[in-house]
Parts: sequence; structure tokens; C-alpha cells
Amino acid sequence: MGTGRLEAFSDGVIAVIITIMVLELKPPEQPTFAALLPLWPTALSYAVSYLFIAIVWLNHHHLLRFAEYPTPRLIWINFAHLFMVSLVPFSTAWVARTRLAAVPVFVYATVFVLVELAYVPFERHALAQAKGKEISPRTRRFATVRALVALGTFVIAMLVSLKLPLWGFGLTCCAVLLYLRPEPPGTGR
Amino acid sequence: MGTGRLEAFSDGVIAVIITIMVLELKPPEQPTFAALLPLWPTALSYAVSYLFIAIVWLNHHHLLRFAEYPTPRLIWINFAHLFMVSLVPFSTAWVARTRLAAVPVFVYATVFVLVELAYVPFERHALAQAKGKEISPRTRRFATVRALVALGTFVIAMLVSLKLPLWGFGLTCCAVLLYLRPEPPGTGR
Amino acid sequence: MGTGRLEAFSDGVIAVIITIMVLELKPPEQPTFAALLPLWPTALSYAVSYLFIAIVWLNHHHLLRFAEYPTPRLIWINFAHLFMVSLVPFSTAWVARTRLAAVPVFVYATVFVLVELAYVPFERHALAQAKGKEISPRTRRFATVRALVALGTFVIAMLVSLKLPLWGFGLTCCAVLLYLRPEPPGTGR
Amino acid sequence: MGTGRLEAFSDGVIAVIITIMVLELKPPEQPTFAALLPLWPTALSYAVSYLFIAIVWLNHHHLLRFAEYPTPRLIWINFAHLFMVSLVPFSTAWVARTRLAAVPVFVYATVFVLVELAYVPFERHALAQAKGKEISPRTRRFATVRALVALGTFVIAMLVSLKLPLWGFGLTCCAVLLYLRPEPPGTGR
Repeated sequence: MGTGRLEAFSDGVIAVIITIMVLELKPPEQPTFAALLPLWPTALSYAVSYLFIAIVWLNHHHLLRFAEYPTPRLIWINFAHLFMVSLVPFSTAWVARTRLAAVPVFVYATVFVLVELAYVPFERHALAQAKGKEISPRTRRFATVRALVALGTFVIAMLVSLKLPLWGFGLTCCAVLLYLRPEPPGTGR
Repeated sequence: MGTGRLEAFSDGVIAVIITIMVLELKPPEQPTFAALLPLWPTALSYAVSYLFIAIVWLNHHHLLRFAEYPTPRLIWINFAHLFMVSLVPFSTAWVARTRLAAVPVFVYATVFVLVELAYVPFERHALAQAKGKEISPRTRRFATVRALVALGTFVIAMLVSLKLPLWGFGLTCCAVLLYLRPEPPGTGR
Repeated sequence: MGTGRLEAFSDGVIAVIITIMVLELKPPEQPTFAALLPLWPTALSYAVSYLFIAIVWLNHHHLLRFAEYPTPRLIWINFAHLFMVSLVPFSTAWVARTRLAAVPVFVYATVFVLVELAYVPFERHALAQAKGKEISPRTRRFATVRALVALGTFVIAMLVSLKLPLWGFGLTCCAVLLYLRPEPPGTGR
Repeated sequence: MGTGRLEAFSDGVIAVIITIMVLELKPPEQPTFAALLPLWPTALSYAVSYLFIAIVWLNHHHLLRFAEYPTPRLIWINFAHLFMVSLVPFSTAWVARTRLAAVPVFVYATVFVLVELAYVPFERHALAQAKGKEISPRTRRFATVRALVALGTFVIAMLVSLKLPLWGFGLTCCAVLLYLRPEPPGTGR
């Protein structure tokens, strides 16, 4: 009775979410390069959100290695996490259609605040199940500090985006990139 | 020859169903907070139905642990169960678009009556395969009583919703929440 | 190096196909029972096609138990089989929208001829990998006869549907139902 | 800690991509054979792209057998590969709607250049993990030569398609077909 099915279900949901977004990328009517140009905000935001959901999966995959048993609590935190992630295609499409307008970027950053708020207890719960020796205190400290920094940056990005949406979007990207490597720097492999 | 593929297929179907619903949440044209407001019935019903399908998965996951062999009967009951669940996005979208009108809420409750009607034999069949000692008589009694109470509540919700749709919707929610924990209260993890 | 990934991929494709069809079932504008009525051809054809794809999965699941190694040939036949199955939502939607008109029912039956034409070598190849004793000559004979009867019925259904679409649709249903139980009658479980 | 989840996730993404394309195939309004005719470019390009993504999966499945551990690098190359593959439905739809016009075919070939550019490091990295004896030098040389030939052909197809789109499309097909069998010719199963 391992976490196999929890992983398989989460993989299914994340796979559908990541590919649903590409449906927004509709081919233009005219067969010209000029007709492709207006697609750039959609293409850019698809690429960015794809990267973000890839990072979500990478960390999910990394953390679930430590969990040994799918406790009800882990299942529910996971559902909350996936729910927040499922809002990414919506906010991505809005940002793309309005070409990075203030309110949509604010909502985009808000969704990542929510994703992070669900991710923090997920990380905590998964690491709590790991045997002591597997995870060094340094790694635990790194996880806590990173979560606080990311959360803070997402909240600042929300506020900034109302005045300077491009800067808010950039800040959101920076905070997500903190999770590019699940482990602390200098860890083997 | 375990139930691995039955689980994997069911996970795939439920993952697609749960993420299809978010497609109803279409970003507004205007980049303003005011433009977000009319989305609240869609957002609310998405959140509620997401929770319900999460509960369906949780119980499905819990029950299939007891089944050891995918008998044709279990496979067919499972297909019937998934069919009923696949109607949830349809009824959710109707409830959202008509902002909780009487007939759509009636249909919403009806879909849950059907989900429950397929779930009862599924639960019976899965528990029947479990070895006697694993499942206490108390747990079996709890399952029967809960199924009857839930079914009764869904039917009452159907009738009530024709006059008082908001109450009907609330009753449906209450009945679903009976399944928030698969096991009887007081059972150790 | 078993057939695990071949199964997982096929499960994914079939899960998406079976749930894509429900997207055709769009909630009506009006919140009345009368507004539900015009949906019956869509609802009926969804139910029928769901049943058919469930039968496809059941037989796929049954057969792959015998295959021990995913030979290139098995993989390609499987892809051809899934391709034909992926046309079912298209023909289902056409039958539903035209309310069982002659040509769409003809196409619907044709798709099942194609599904069957890809299923026959799939069955042959999977059974060929099974060890002799596992599969009795009676079972092999049953498989051959059933395939011929089903194929013949699908072709007759094609021709009939051009004059009598309802009869053609009924014949298609009968032929599919031959696969309701993967094993020959009288076989233990 | 094998590559199981990486495979499962990739299977999910490829399964969704391959079935999303069939959504482009919309049933006509009229229930006549004549109404089916204008669908041929969509149907043809669906069949071709289905074949191509099947080939992508076949090679992905073949290569991941050699990888023993999901290194961060392998995961990221895999995400890049899947991203490029996820653009195939977009370019397929554009080619179909414009009936093989010059610029869409150019974009179609470009997407395959990108798929190949992500596939080459994926192949390298997966084979690097395989133990020396499993993979002969001949197989490694074959992989390198094939990758170069395919890449060259895709680039030529891009250039050709601007003047002669049909030839460009044909060249793209030829290059993809180089991967029809993952192993070098003459290799025993």
C-alpha cells in the first residue's frame, strides 16, 4: 500500500493541465508569418506556464519519494495543491489575451501564492514521513527558507503587478525559478 | 494479475474529468476585477465539484485496496460508477450557467443519486473480496448505514431543489461530505 | 521489460477518448426539463459509445494479460487499434447531431469495422505469445468464430444503415455486445 | 527509485496530445458523403501526425529502457522534448486548415526540427546510462548518423516547403519514418 496510486493520479492531472494550455494556441486563419505574430503573448505565456508546471511536477516527484504511506492528510493536501495548479491555465489564458494587463498579472501571481500555500504543508508532511537520517537539518532549513522567500516574492509580485504588470510578472518568474532544483545547492548529483 | 490496470484506467478517467471542468472557467474579456465577478457561480461550482470528485477518488482508492482480483463484475460496476461520475461536469456547468436554478440543481442531485447507486455495489463487491479479519463488522455496518443515509439525502435534495434550489444544493453537499473520511469515525489510520 | 508501459499508455489514450465524448453533452441555455429533451440523441449515443469503449478496454485488458513482451509488432497493432478507437467520438458526435441519419450511421458502422480489423491481429498476436496450456483450442476457435461473426455483422450493418439507419445502428450494437464477455461462455470466471 | 513516474507522466502527456488532435475532426452539419469530403485534409494530417507521435512514443519507450535513474538532467531534457511534441497538434491544425500552404508546412517542419533537437540529447543521455555491453558501438554510431540525417532532412524540408509545400511535407514524412524502427536494421529483437 505505497503512494503509487497517489502518484499516478497526480501525474494524470498534471499531464492534462500541462497539455490543456496548448489548446489556447489556436492556428491563425491566414497562412502567413505575419499571422503568427499576434500569437506571441499566448506562445510566451504557454512556454512560461509549461516551465512552471514542469517545476511543480519536478518538486512533487522529488518529495513523494520520501512519503511512504498515502495518509488521508497527504491525500487532501495533494488535492488542494493540484486544485491550485489547475487554476494556472485559466490565469495564463487571461494574461495572454490581455497581453500582460495589470489585473490578470495580479491574478496570475495570486494563483502562485495559493499554489505555494498548498505546497508548504505538502513538503512538510512528506519530509516528516522520511526517516531522520535521509534528510539533513540543512536540507530542512533550506526548504523552510526557500518557502518563505518564494511566498514573500509572490506577494510582492501581486502588489507590484497592479502598477507595473511586467515587473510583477518578472518577479513571479524569479520566485518560481527558486524551485528549479528541488535540492539545496551543493547537494550531490 | 492484480487490480493495477483497473486502478490506472480509473485514475486516468477521473483525472480527465476533474480537469475538464476547469475548462468551463473562461477568462473574461476585460482585464478588470469587475469582469471577474460574474465568474463566481462557475468558480464556486468548480470548487464544489472538484471537492466531490476528490471524495469519489479517495473512496475509490480506499476500496480498491481490498479487492485482490479484477473480476468482470468489479470491472463493470467500476465502469458504471465512472460513467455516472463523468456526468458531473455536465451538471456542474448547467448549475453554474443558470446560477443555481431549480431544474439544474435537481439534475445535479440526480447525478449524485446515480453515482451513489453505482457506488453501493462497488463497495459491497470490493469489501466482499477482502479477507474477513481485515474488515470489522462495525465497518461493514457503517458502510451500509452511510450508503442509505447518503442515498436518502440525495433523493430529498432532488425533491427540495425543485422548490428551494439553494437548499437542495446545500443538502447534496452535506450528503457528499459524509464520505469525507472513507473509514468510520474513531478508526485508527 | 514487461508490457507495463504499453498498458499505461493505452489506458491513458482510452481514458481521454471515453471522457472527450462527454464534452459533446453541452448544458442547455434554459433551466427547464423541456430544454433537456433535445439532448436525448447526444445522451443516448454517449451512453452507447461509452459502453462500446468500455468493452474495447475490457478485451484489451483481458488480452494483454497473455502478452509477455511488447514486441514492435504488438506495439504497432496496438497503435492501429487505438487510432480506430479514437475515431469513435467523431462518428458518435455525427450520429448524435444528425439524429441517426443514414450516412452518419454508415460511418459509425465503418469505424467499428476498422476497430475490428485492427483488433483481430491484436488478439492473434497476444494469444500467440501465451503459453500453449493457458489457452485451450476451444478458446482459440471461439475467438476466430466471434471475430468473423462480428466483422460480418458490422459490414451488414454498414449496408443496412444506408436504407434503414435505425436497424443498422441496432445491428452494430448487437455485434459489439458479442464482446461483452471476453471469454467463451461457460468458462470459469 | 526507477524511472517509473517519469514514464507514467510522459505517457499521460503523449496520450493527451495524441487524442487532442482528433478534436479538430469536427463532424459536418449535413448527413451526406459530400459533406465528409472537405474533411480530408484534416483527416489526412491527423493520421500523419498520429503516426508521428506514435513513432515518438515508440522511441521514447525504447530509450527509457536503458535509463536506470531519473537524473534531473534526464527529467529536464524529457520536459523539453514533450514541450516540442506538444506543438505538433497546433502545427497539424494549421496545415490542415490551410490545406498544406507554404508557411504552415514550414512551421510544421520547424516543429520537427525542435522535436529532434530535444530528442538527440535525450537519446545520448539515456544511452550513456546503459551499461557498455548492452549497447554495441554499431548501435551508437547508427543513432548518431540517423540523428544527423533526420535533422538535415527536416532543415531541408523547412527551406523546400516555402517554395514547394507538398515536397516539404513529403520530406518531413520521410525523415520521421527513419525512426519507424528504434533499432538499427538487422538487429535481432
